[in-house]
Amino acid sequence: MERVRIETEKPYDVLIGPGLLSRAGEEIAKVVRPCRAAVITDDTVRILYGETVVDSLQKAGFETEIWAFPHGEQHKTMDTLSDALEWLGSVELSRSDLVVALGGGVPGDLAGFAAAVYNRGMRFVQIPTTLLAAVDSSVGGKTAVDLRAGKNMAGAFHQPELVLCDTDVIRALPPELKRDGLAEMLKYGVLIDPDLFNVLHTSAWEKRMEQVIARCVSIKRDYVLGDEKDNGKRQFLNLGHTFGHAVELCSGFTLTHGQGVGVGMVMAARAAGMEPEAVEEACLACGLPIRVPYGARELTAAALHDKKRRGGKITLVLPEAIGKCCLKTIDISELPVYFAKGTGETP
Amino acid sequence: MERVRIETEKPYDVLIGPGLLSRAGEEIAKVVRPCRAAVITDDTVRILYGETVVDSLQKAGFETEIWAFPHGEQHKTMDTLSDALEWLGSVELSRSDLVVALGGGVPGDLAGFAAAVYNRGMRFVQIPTTLLAAVDSSVGGKTAVDLRAGKNMAGAFHQPELVLCDTDVIRALPPELKRDGLAEMLKYGVLIDPDLFNVLHTSAWEKRMEQVIARCVSIKRDYVLGDEKDNGKRQFLNLGHTFGHAVELCSGFTLTHGQGVGVGMVMAARAAGMEPEAVEEACLACGLPIRVPYGARELTAAALHDKKRRGGKITLVLPEAIGKCCLKTIDISELPVYFAKGTGETP
Repeated sequence: MERVRIETEKPYDVLIGPGLLSRAGEEIAKVVRPCRAAVITDDTVRILYGETVVDSLQKAGFETEIWAFPHGEQHKTMDTLSDALEWLGSVELSRSDLVVALGGGVPGDLAGFAAAVYNRGMRFVQIPTTLLAAVDSSVGGKTAVDLRAGKNMAGAFHQPELVLCDTDVIRALPPELKRDGLAEMLKYGVLIDPDLFNVLHTSAWEKRMEQVIARCVSIKRDYVLGDEKDNGKRQFLNLGHTFGHAVELCSGFTLTHGQGVGVGMVMAARAAGMEPEAVEEACLACGLPIRVPYGARELTAAALHDKKRRGGKITLVLPEAIGKCCLKTIDISELPVYFAKGTGETP
Repeated sequence: MERVRIETEKPYDVLIGPGLLSRAGEEIAKVVRPCRAAVITDDTVRILYGETVVDSLQKAGFETEIWAFPHGEQHKTMDTLSDALEWLGSVELSRSDLVVALGGGVPGDLAGFAAAVYNRGMRFVQIPTTLLAAVDSSVGGKTAVDLRAGKNMAGAFHQPELVLCDTDVIRALPPELKRDGLAEMLKYGVLIDPDLFNVLHTSAWEKRMEQVIARCVSIKRDYVLGDEKDNGKRQFLNLGHTFGHAVELCSGFTLTHGQGVGVGMVMAARAAGMEPEAVEEACLACGLPIRVPYGARELTAAALHDKKRRGGKITLVLPEAIGKCCLKTIDISELPVYFAKGTGETP
């Protein structure tokens, strides 16, 4: 088992290893004295893993309740948040109790947000069940729901007490779900770690899954720490995201976030004037797209809805080489040029 | 004009004086560079003061939008919060913009909560238009909505950039709205300030309204600072509230919070073994009740729903004299004895 320590204001551990779902209660009891535990998940994850987690919590002395909402990003809404909060109220969860967020990014973000605001802040434990949630949402304290105006537009910063990442669960994921995690993992490689980048080319990384996930979590931690409110170096984590979000939007969300980030990194490399082959090969090896049928003009229009825009400026993350990137703040009016370079159109 | 500095992590001022509503934009522009401003209020306050505030903001260079929800505690819900957030999204408020919370406790709590979670935290300015909101909600950073399970059960701690309390607005309030503020002001007197307690006996305090409100805000600040998350000395501010909440609940909320706190302080004085006459006289002078037709048993049952209870213990605030109170943590099983003493029944 790997353990990554996250030294936020209130430090916590990310544990990564096999069998953690059935040892969840035991591990949680080491950091939270047994109390009442309210598990929030979605209907798919509840069927797969709900019983294992509830049994484990109960064996460890937690009086446990579980609640599931319908799966899918379309349910990451204020309505579902409201249902979750009313449920926590109905089971009379008190200030000294615990919320457990079980599932991928959607249950993680929603349950984390519910924990952040119920009684103005409850302790919570995160149990990510997708690779993306394990390497991305488990560090950084971001919780959220979507508004009609955009994704993740309502939320809170709220740190967990513990994160449990069961590698047996990750290993059992279908390839299309692994792919979304791999895109973020490639991103960490492009940002700062050529060795990590190279190991992801082959499925051999799964043999060293614990160490590779731990490395990703450590990299994200290093970008997030000291910038918990998202104003400085955390911006590097947006590599591939300005282009990627635009791609996702243009596809009407038929492309996933991971697919967007994959092709977004290829576009960022091109826009930076770097040879994109290495990034393209890695994306192809991970099952990620390297080209999309949207033009620079269409993508630029979509990107202008990106909420990371501040006034008339936007900060791009541009790779110089695998393992080395820089931030470049440009005027919004320059964006079409970067998109034209990114898509390979003549600017 | 009085100015009270609140030294939270991010310090801000509470300004108290006449004409502040029509000078709102000017004062806000001193601390927030003109940007887009989204005013959230209720329908009653919008009619009374919406135009004044919007005009003032626009004159100061803020591009201003206003949105109102139906007035009343029954609208302090997740549904209204959701509507407020979707509205902020629809007017495309960005991270660098400003939310303005205009109104009494309900708009203040709801708009503050919306500001706390929209884009994971927006700057906001509070303009309290009731005496209660001015002396109570303007300091402490508590924002919230009600759940079916109880009042203020979902919320966030979020500090404003500035608080503007217009004494012309307070002066124009009907007596029944002043009463609720006076109850909290008497509370500050009973806690720590006999002079403040005495000045509230007569309407003469209104001649020194700025100074008296400033004194109340300062007292609350001193209890809240260093205890922003509500675990230590902030508990003193619950004086009259354990008894008062029980009274409110038993009345089916036909008695207001202020009325509950008034009679709650009388009960706390009796429960503490102090002669209650001084508190009774002050309550009567302020138009607050000193007796209620609910028995100790009924009130105890209601109090057990009080979310401030931690496990099997509850902390009461007991006055020893006007200006001197102590905290006493008792086992819940002892609560009936205190309620019997409080109501004057033989325990």
